[in-house]
Amino acid sequence: MGNTFGKIFRITTYGESHGGGVGVVIDGCPPQLEISEAEIQVDLDRRRPGQSKITTPRKESDTCEIMSGVFEGKTLGTPISILVRNKDARSQDYNEMAVKYRPSHADATYDAKYGIRNYKGGGRSSARETIGRVAGGAIAKKILHQVAGVQIIAYVKRIKDIEAEVDSNTVTLEQVESNIVRCPNSECAEVMIDRIEQARKDKDSLGGVVECVARHVPRGLGDPVFDKLEADLAKGVMSLPATKGFEIGSGFAGTTMTGSEHNDEFYIDDNGDTRTVSNRSGGVQGGISNGENIVIRVAFKPTATIGKEQKTVTKDGEETSLAAKGRHDPCVLPRAVPMVEAMVALVLCDRLLYNNAQCKTLNDSN
Amino acid sequence: MGNTFGKIFRITTYGESHGGGVGVVIDGCPPQLEISEAEIQVDLDRRRPGQSKITTPRKESDTCEIMSGVFEGKTLGTPISILVRNKDARSQDYNEMAVKYRPSHADATYDAKYGIRNYKGGGRSSARETIGRVAGGAIAKKILHQVAGVQIIAYVKRIKDIEAEVDSNTVTLEQVESNIVRCPNSECAEVMIDRIEQARKDKDSLGGVVECVARHVPRGLGDPVFDKLEADLAKGVMSLPATKGFEIGSGFAGTTMTGSEHNDEFYIDDNGDTRTVSNRSGGVQGGISNGENIVIRVAFKPTATIGKEQKTVTKDGEETSLAAKGRHDPCVLPRAVPMVEAMVALVLCDRLLYNNAQCKTLNDSN
Amino acid sequence: MGNTFGKIFRITTYGESHGGGVGVVIDGCPPQLEISEAEIQVDLDRRRPGQSKITTPRKESDTCEIMSGVFEGKTLGTPISILVRNKDARSQDYNEMAVKYRPSHADATYDAKYGIRNYKGGGRSSARETIGRVAGGAIAKKILHQVAGVQIIAYVKRIKDIEAEVDSNTVTLEQVESNIVRCPNSECAEVMIDRIEQARKDKDSLGGVVECVARHVPRGLGDPVFDKLEADLAKGVMSLPATKGFEIGSGFAGTTMTGSEHNDEFYIDDNGDTRTVSNRSGGVQGGISNGENIVIRVAFKPTATIGKEQKTVTKDGEETSLAAKGRHDPCVLPRAVPMVEAMVALVLCDRLLYNNAQCKTLNDSN
Amino acid sequence: MGNTFGKIFRITTYGESHGGGVGVVIDGCPPQLEISEAEIQVDLDRRRPGQSKITTPRKESDTCEIMSGVFEGKTLGTPISILVRNKDARSQDYNEMAVKYRPSHADATYDAKYGIRNYKGGGRSSARETIGRVAGGAIAKKILHQVAGVQIIAYVKRIKDIEAEVDSNTVTLEQVESNIVRCPNSECAEVMIDRIEQARKDKDSLGGVVECVARHVPRGLGDPVFDKLEADLAKGVMSLPATKGFEIGSGFAGTTMTGSEHNDEFYIDDNGDTRTVSNRSGGVQGGISNGENIVIRVAFKPTATIGKEQKTVTKDGEETSLAAKGRHDPCVLPRAVPMVEAMVALVLCDRLLYNNAQCKTLNDSN
Repeated sequence: MGNTFGKIFRITTYGESHGGGVGVVIDGCPPQLEISEAEIQVDLDRRRPGQSKITTPRKESDTCEIMSGVFEGKTLGTPISILVRNKDARSQDYNEMAVKYRPSHADATYDAKYGIRNYKGGGRSSARETIGRVAGGAIAKKILHQVAGVQIIAYVKRIKDIEAEVDSNTVTLEQVESNIVRCPNSECAEVMIDRIEQARKDKDSLGGVVECVARHVPRGLGDPVFDKLEADLAKGVMSLPATKGFEIGSGFAGTTMTGSEHNDEFYIDDNGDTRTVSNRSGGVQGGISNGENIVIRVAFKPTATIGKEQKTVTKDGEETSLAAKGRHDPCVLPRAVPMVEAMVALVLCDRLLYNNAQCKTLNDSN
Repeated sequence: MGNTFGKIFRITTYGESHGGGVGVVIDGCPPQLEISEAEIQVDLDRRRPGQSKITTPRKESDTCEIMSGVFEGKTLGTPISILVRNKDARSQDYNEMAVKYRPSHADATYDAKYGIRNYKGGGRSSARETIGRVAGGAIAKKILHQVAGVQIIAYVKRIKDIEAEVDSNTVTLEQVESNIVRCPNSECAEVMIDRIEQARKDKDSLGGVVECVARHVPRGLGDPVFDKLEADLAKGVMSLPATKGFEIGSGFAGTTMTGSEHNDEFYIDDNGDTRTVSNRSGGVQGGISNGENIVIRVAFKPTATIGKEQKTVTKDGEETSLAAKGRHDPCVLPRAVPMVEAMVALVLCDRLLYNNAQCKTLNDSN
Repeated sequence: MGNTFGKIFRITTYGESHGGGVGVVIDGCPPQLEISEAEIQVDLDRRRPGQSKITTPRKESDTCEIMSGVFEGKTLGTPISILVRNKDARSQDYNEMAVKYRPSHADATYDAKYGIRNYKGGGRSSARETIGRVAGGAIAKKILHQVAGVQIIAYVKRIKDIEAEVDSNTVTLEQVESNIVRCPNSECAEVMIDRIEQARKDKDSLGGVVECVARHVPRGLGDPVFDKLEADLAKGVMSLPATKGFEIGSGFAGTTMTGSEHNDEFYIDDNGDTRTVSNRSGGVQGGISNGENIVIRVAFKPTATIGKEQKTVTKDGEETSLAAKGRHDPCVLPRAVPMVEAMVALVLCDRLLYNNAQCKTLNDSN
Repeated sequence: MGNTFGKIFRITTYGESHGGGVGVVIDGCPPQLEISEAEIQVDLDRRRPGQSKITTPRKESDTCEIMSGVFEGKTLGTPISILVRNKDARSQDYNEMAVKYRPSHADATYDAKYGIRNYKGGGRSSARETIGRVAGGAIAKKILHQVAGVQIIAYVKRIKDIEAEVDSNTVTLEQVESNIVRCPNSECAEVMIDRIEQARKDKDSLGGVVECVARHVPRGLGDPVFDKLEADLAKGVMSLPATKGFEIGSGFAGTTMTGSEHNDEFYIDDNGDTRTVSNRSGGVQGGISNGENIVIRVAFKPTATIGKEQKTVTKDGEETSLAAKGRHDPCVLPRAVPMVEAMVALVLCDRLLYNNAQCKTLNDSN
């Protein structure tokens, strides 16, 4: 339990940061989808370490190998296994951390739960675990685009207190990828990059907010009760490392409005479709997509592993202090952007397939 | 899919607001737990309509009947089925809403998804659906308390812009239940109640924030990757009606801190246990409970169904306007308090049982 | 766990033989299916006790009540809850069995597992538990018939050593229902009925074999590996009480043939479809339906509860003997026929919906 | 769906016979279990091709590599990924079979379901898929043995009509492994081997029955309704390639007995434990293990791929004939023995862990 996500389009990830490698098994993917390692690699490259001066310098090409499920460039309908071998594992950086718990990291809770831990790295709490998610998400995005023209674009909305104005209705992938912090507002991006570089120099770290929009999502995805679309999205992104909060549509700010201010009034558009004037619902009403843009925001805390000295304890119960060595991200947000996209894609693809199962079967028979 | 929550301690809810009744089947409950209808009724009464002047006047006693799974006052280890019949269904209030979609409600998306809808009420989107959750949560709370002394207390933290100072370490159920808005800060509570009464008079509605603390949670609950404890908590509470956001620990505010400010430093307490000085992690690190208090916050939007006139459309695609009739809550938060408690309890109980399966089996054999 | 069956079309049953009642929650049913209590009652009546002189005389009308999920005669796409109240519970028959374990019954293992047991009856091991399955199966059968014209017909193939010749390609429901033992071969049926009556007089019981055919099953249902169609069918019927074996197609007898004798050669029929000359595969190849008739057989042991005196032990570990009182079936097979049909229907319906999810999504988008 | 087995101890397999490789991800394994590649390899070697003159001569060392989840010789509690690369893939043997369907094989149904197929081999229907099961089963067996001393031994009970007398109470692994057909009755084994060699010469194939006993299984595994232990065992072994039937305990033969003959009378043994005199129940009563030996039998049809010429059709709908090339097993049973052991182990291990979750939690807290 815990390493599989989804009900119909399901991914199972495996692998520690230090060990043979990391990967994913994708089950339930429709057959006959054209897919290549190169397409998957595009998103893996957006996630990989060492991609810019504001990410960890750990050198990993993160080259993926499809082990199964694809034949002559097309999916077989059988499980797709994708493997990325670990390469640049500098375990000596972890010698001290083998006995000293990093504050606000997973070291202490892993030991408490399992009584054992791969102390040569972060184990499953390492961002390397997300390689499998991003690979699975790349396939989910392709299905969503091919079936319904869905576009999923995430971007850095805020770093610490630098918040960027971004129009989620028009933002493009090109704008997001135009700078290394992945903030489509280029002025803000510059300031953000400076702040992150400063944090690195200070042996400290920064957090912020990633926003993600999904456009052209078909109506009808999500279910009324426990599997509300916003609940699955929340679960998906809150399962990413370092997340502390989730919002959809108006989020926490919307709670200060009255109902008459907050409700999205309906109108009929030129195609005769039922639409909403505003979108404080964030594209989901009653747990089900309404065809408007889905807009969510995710809070990422500042990276726990920092070079500054902090009070901590050893696994044997002695108080001590730790200034973490190793090559860590001073801010996870630029690399978190493809991770958030992946989780949103995985949720939407799973819900799309399920919706076809339940709600099209009888209709198709008529 | 969509109507079951949990993996080991699992609840399946059923029922529309207008129809025979609503209920829950609880599967995976340990045997030999003492439980009675009266104990479950306590939480159902905190949830039911008509309990105070600031809730909907719909008259429902919500009396529960245990149909199976309990014998001579103890659980059998077999499914516990609990039924609450619907009584005060004034369907005529829904005549207009049968054709006109309520803005920001589930009417339009249900029609889009299913092509059919119980237009005599909110169907599955009705707050009546949560009866099953609250009943299941009552049992989960009892297990958690009996096994580990866990206390789960939710309360209204904010109504619109009235935010209450509450110490989550010390707040008591008695304080929460001392007023009808369920805010343990009695001064704020008075203002909140006034505001809600005013909103009702204005045929409008209000939103706010519910906070929930779980104390004495054992270390080790939750899993490293997709089933991180915060991810399951997010999924649980975001599946409640009207939720727009979720936070754990420092939440969105924590993203404006640096890592050195945000990290929770460790120390060894008098019992020799590893503890944290601060609790910005909210009781969860690396997806796993660390023994500190779990603290979450949930954003509830203002109720969608209001008496004020609003622009909308009919199911046949014509623009019109609607001033909703019927007996609706001007603010869902007082009744949402036991719902949030229930979802937190369901998640923690499920994770507790799973933890025993995976992490105790080998140890117990030694 | 243990009380839910299916992945997309899912049923969750609850209830003990003695207690408030038994029932089922059906989740994932497509919306807009016409269904009524009367239609479900047809199969419940084929299952209920007291229907003939060769079944238990326990008097239960087993009248079902739909509590949710159906509106104006059509399914809503939300969970369908169906309740049957218990009525004729003569618990005094169980006084002795409260302390003495019935040989080959569930009494002893329930006590060993749970440490508690509803000793006023068979609890979850009672055939009453199958009411929920039969109700769910009735809906599954209707979907299968409406979508693809599937016919599912089970019948008694053998009682003890009386084996009937039956042509699974042509057998009709009318033939099955033409006698109380549900064997479509009327000559054999007479002998079977005599034998069962004699067994009852002898305070003994009989077993036998139920065969089930599913005709017009679409190609492509079932999955290559763990969810092979025969594996799911086996799981489904082996979860019925009193089952000891399962066969598909040639079954155990086929293992005495050579490959060249056993293989089903292919040909092209008049419609240009790929068909097989013989059907030793039983309609499934590689775990996936091939369009031929699915034929399975299920072994039911003789009823465990008998009036003859047998050696046993008490729950306190003392050796004793027991001649069971109470009203029990001398042979479960006549009532098992609708149960087997229900399990086959539940499996096929679930697989049909899943197949639409995985294998139609991309195609439909072209 | 379809590639994951188990609920708590879960395996997900992937890989086609021709492609990068095959493997398994094992989730939910308890932490701190000592395990090595060498231990897993023992069972893989019992399964691999080319091990004797009566198996396919395909040369595969099937050397496994643990990619994750094990650290310094112990499990971490995180997913264990095990990879076996494909090596001796002689795809040219499949040129003809790319267009001609093998009778009673999965070729035609895969094409019907997915519209695509890895025609260079059997794809997921290849026995290579079972590598992941056997690897997972090796770990499950170790857990069961360490926690409860469980022994699981499978063996060939019958080849075609050559049936061996074997005492399931006393049979040893050494006896099973003492000959290449894995029948512990050495006289029968010789005849069986001769028959299989003759079948190979005849370009034909044979089927038979594998029996499996699990000894020292703790009382209480399995659940009353859908997850009866025999139902899960049936599902597990019927998901193996080429299976046509399943029996537990008295099986089909038991249906010819009367209840008074068939019931297992109870007695109290010298330890004061409740035991049964006979074991026609096969170690399971009411779906729950009773502490007696679990005994099951599985029917394997004769291998579908044979060198003899047979009538078939092409994927384009033309009638033709096929004499299969390639290196195939004339009889799968010797290699099926470790597969059956694996599936039994996977079921029992999963049920053991689940039982601890549900039934020990409250007790441990007392």
